[in-house]
Amino acid sequence: MCIFGIYTNLKKDAELHYTRQVVQALEDRGVPYYFDDALVKAMGAGPEASCRGRKIDVLLVLGGDGTMLTAARKYGPQGTRLLGLNMGRMGFLLDTEVENLRAAIDGILAGKYRIEKRIMLKAGILDAEGKIRASAYGLNEAVISQKKVLRIVNVHVAVNGLPVDNWRCDGLIVSTPTGSTGYSLSAGGPVVQPTVDVLLITPICPHTLQSSNIVISGNDEITVRAESDYGSTVLTLDGQDAFEIGQNETVSIKKADFGVEFIRYTDKNFFLLLKEKLAEWVIK
Amino acid sequence: MCIFGIYTNLKKDAELHYTRQVVQALEDRGVPYYFDDALVKAMGAGPEASCRGRKIDVLLVLGGDGTMLTAARKYGPQGTRLLGLNMGRMGFLLDTEVENLRAAIDGILAGKYRIEKRIMLKAGILDAEGKIRASAYGLNEAVISQKKVLRIVNVHVAVNGLPVDNWRCDGLIVSTPTGSTGYSLSAGGPVVQPTVDVLLITPICPHTLQSSNIVISGNDEITVRAESDYGSTVLTLDGQDAFEIGQNETVSIKKADFGVEFIRYTDKNFFLLLKEKLAEWVIK
Amino acid sequence: MCIFGIYTNLKKDAELHYTRQVVQALEDRGVPYYFDDALVKAMGAGPEASCRGRKIDVLLVLGGDGTMLTAARKYGPQGTRLLGLNMGRMGFLLDTEVENLRAAIDGILAGKYRIEKRIMLKAGILDAEGKIRASAYGLNEAVISQKKVLRIVNVHVAVNGLPVDNWRCDGLIVSTPTGSTGYSLSAGGPVVQPTVDVLLITPICPHTLQSSNIVISGNDEITVRAESDYGSTVLTLDGQDAFEIGQNETVSIKKADFGVEFIRYTDKNFFLLLKEKLAEWVIK
Amino acid sequence: MCIFGIYTNLKKDAELHYTRQVVQALEDRGVPYYFDDALVKAMGAGPEASCRGRKIDVLLVLGGDGTMLTAARKYGPQGTRLLGLNMGRMGFLLDTEVENLRAAIDGILAGKYRIEKRIMLKAGILDAEGKIRASAYGLNEAVISQKKVLRIVNVHVAVNGLPVDNWRCDGLIVSTPTGSTGYSLSAGGPVVQPTVDVLLITPICPHTLQSSNIVISGNDEITVRAESDYGSTVLTLDGQDAFEIGQNETVSIKKADFGVEFIRYTDKNFFLLLKEKLAEWVIK
Repeated sequence: MCIFGIYTNLKKDAELHYTRQVVQALEDRGVPYYFDDALVKAMGAGPEASCRGRKIDVLLVLGGDGTMLTAARKYGPQGTRLLGLNMGRMGFLLDTEVENLRAAIDGILAGKYRIEKRIMLKAGILDAEGKIRASAYGLNEAVISQKKVLRIVNVHVAVNGLPVDNWRCDGLIVSTPTGSTGYSLSAGGPVVQPTVDVLLITPICPHTLQSSNIVISGNDEITVRAESDYGSTVLTLDGQDAFEIGQNETVSIKKADFGVEFIRYTDKNFFLLLKEKLAEWVIK
Repeated sequence: MCIFGIYTNLKKDAELHYTRQVVQALEDRGVPYYFDDALVKAMGAGPEASCRGRKIDVLLVLGGDGTMLTAARKYGPQGTRLLGLNMGRMGFLLDTEVENLRAAIDGILAGKYRIEKRIMLKAGILDAEGKIRASAYGLNEAVISQKKVLRIVNVHVAVNGLPVDNWRCDGLIVSTPTGSTGYSLSAGGPVVQPTVDVLLITPICPHTLQSSNIVISGNDEITVRAESDYGSTVLTLDGQDAFEIGQNETVSIKKADFGVEFIRYTDKNFFLLLKEKLAEWVIK
Repeated sequence: MCIFGIYTNLKKDAELHYTRQVVQALEDRGVPYYFDDALVKAMGAGPEASCRGRKIDVLLVLGGDGTMLTAARKYGPQGTRLLGLNMGRMGFLLDTEVENLRAAIDGILAGKYRIEKRIMLKAGILDAEGKIRASAYGLNEAVISQKKVLRIVNVHVAVNGLPVDNWRCDGLIVSTPTGSTGYSLSAGGPVVQPTVDVLLITPICPHTLQSSNIVISGNDEITVRAESDYGSTVLTLDGQDAFEIGQNETVSIKKADFGVEFIRYTDKNFFLLLKEKLAEWVIK
Repeated sequence: MCIFGIYTNLKKDAELHYTRQVVQALEDRGVPYYFDDALVKAMGAGPEASCRGRKIDVLLVLGGDGTMLTAARKYGPQGTRLLGLNMGRMGFLLDTEVENLRAAIDGILAGKYRIEKRIMLKAGILDAEGKIRASAYGLNEAVISQKKVLRIVNVHVAVNGLPVDNWRCDGLIVSTPTGSTGYSLSAGGPVVQPTVDVLLITPICPHTLQSSNIVISGNDEITVRAESDYGSTVLTLDGQDAFEIGQNETVSIKKADFGVEFIRYTDKNFFLLLKEKLAEWVIK
């Protein structure tokens, strides 16, 4: 029996119009479902309706690409499969327009879908003794930068323990292929097909003319030590989760030992999607 | 009679070794001199020794390029001429090695030097009614960005009232030719010969693939309106002076109606200086 | 009395439909006119109808931006004013849609127009003794490169006799502001407002990580010496006129001592034009 | 029994000084060896001394990186292992300084070395019926461009049959990780660790602001159709082998079904090598 979870961007579905349609569709089909914590409250449900502590097989995500990033970081590590129901503009990560939610749910119940696996990052903050003090996941990228805006940070980067370079820059981006069309792209990084097993290292506005963009194997581990004259540095995942980095701490970034699984019906050409997305950027 | 001021980077000349040599040299020559405020205290002098409220003809600046930026913003508007006495690594703005201070002072007294004039920026923050609420000068660049690190800001840029573009980016740099080898360069801007009368507009990590670097006339006025979903934005001059920008405020940036005057003895080839500087960046 | 010339892109107006309309309009108004050489033949006219050897006051150019480049190189040096009658897609240099040719001619006769002056380049090839062996004009850019495709050339660049740098690259572009939206832009150069008095130096695919884009004063003179292991190098103006460069020859490039004058009725915002142009590039 | 081949860059070892040392060392050890064709003649040997038609186990390559590219294209497809004996400046592909040739030969005979496998490209030209008319290998990159210098070519690119984009540009580079530090880098491509299984697609000076650099899987096949208004286009491999492309022909590029094997003794940090190389570029 397939257990469903529902994850809604409460800004995009403020009146819960589509969320209630999803609930109704699942009720109609007699399928068990639970709500992500924020939604429990919004739906006026009790704690027994929460996904918390349960094994969710499929998470229906209502929102945009940003919503999908948050949901992937939270549910990806549990092996939950995610289907994005798009409520925004064109999304890379959302497979299905929200209007088609019933057909999508039927497809899931019939097992008629494709799985697209995406690598995620695991970033850990190590204290002076090399012990992991905190760790977190990212689907797009990990960024190490100043807490205060636009101040230079000096980053020392190693791959598998071997020094790569040190850059004086606004920050350092370590990106997955999924993240290659996001922040990494605006910092000059290459576009990577989503299923290629690599990681990207891209400094932001480096005060050096060294080669800026590096592609390494998805099996490599990156270590970053950040020095600053202007106070603390931070590790930010997907532009959403931030962790302060202490003075003698280092950050370790590598591929997570799981890949998040997206449910796919459509078989879009990644490059045409990209082209649409970029055109959208230009014609504002 | 030429009135001297002395401006010292107290980190670089912590024991005032060179500052005292400057003082001695001026005493030996019977020349009147005053201290910048911070130095008054460091020298244990009284308020009568301060530059404040006096017309300083020539300011001797001991430090590095960063010191020169601060001194230029403070003394440039008064028409004071600046001579940089270099205590750091290679500097673009500092003419003379600090060891040669006596010869340099003699040259000034004899009027045997060249003047290199550099344009400065005047940036103003305008409130909702269009009144200038605050204004400040910059020698390198004005940056408009988020207060919080690495968050996107939406900037709407106009030149002489005509819309140029709006960018979703990490920030916007408006640079002088002097600033073209600084932050602007790391954001992908061109290198401009110091005496060319232009301004540069360069977005930082724009989320768009539009043309990124724009060169306009030094007589143009740039207006920037910055929108943010994440709180306040700031205007920063030369990476040193910061001003918070209110919700309905705009920023106006144009060439100041004076140019700062640097005293020059040496006639260095700007491009070779640049090459040295960049080589220094690479071989760390 | 205003003497007109007519310059037609014979590919774009293959059946001379619009050219004949121009002729008719000039006949109707009793205005003297002559044809550019290629057009003399196409119109079946005799040599007395040719612009050759006459002082042409206003040249009507039917075609696209490329046509305007050719016409400007040929007629600009004589002080002829040019009006572009656009037969193509959006053009930066063509003021008037060809359909409005009658109103445009009336405007010229009435003197009701604006002049936009653009700087042009003068490039000279100097032999081993420093004598000018050949020279030519360009409105967009001068390019120095290999004759054989995609072979590295080693260029030594000086400005006003002072060495700037030497690059191993595919070629070197020296561009006017007008040319800044052309080849220079694809090689990574900045966009320059058309009326700013500067020149741009941009190497093509340099095998070096030095600063790539340089902005110098419009009054500077650039000297280029190109070395190649693979045979001859060439100087190309506006991508249209090519001159082989001998083994011991150098190329000198500076602003021409005249500016070409474009007749303008419309007052388009250069940046919006640019935005349209770039959008056109994306959505093919 | 290990059969050796010798491949010498006759410009770098013009007097065959090191080549004769290699011969002597192999003679001393009683090891069979043959010469590459060009060397047969230079050594004054007979046709029986030629590698041609023989299975060569290990090829000793005397020269620089460029020599290694040529040797890899010729001997890589046969499964020959290559050891580079460096006679030039720092090389990425040459493991051993030529002075250490005896120790290197001993290491090979003792089987005491490491193999570094690099992917190579196989490029084929397909005629209008889709039949392969010609094919060739490349270790660094395949470039499709105009025959005439600096003329725009319109390239239509597909990956695994799906359209990616079409660019108006100076040319298109498809690079291996090995080639990522070569021409691809000067065109703005990322640096890729040598052993990562990807290919890079990079247009040269594209007349578009679309994303320029694309990273795809090493298992993908790229198809390129090139259109030109200015005559023929060419396919060039490693900047050394050129093939004219006919009007209705397309080019197919994919990973070769073998990887060239380099013999390695030293275990250099790729990123430090790169840094040295780039520093060498700057300080000329």
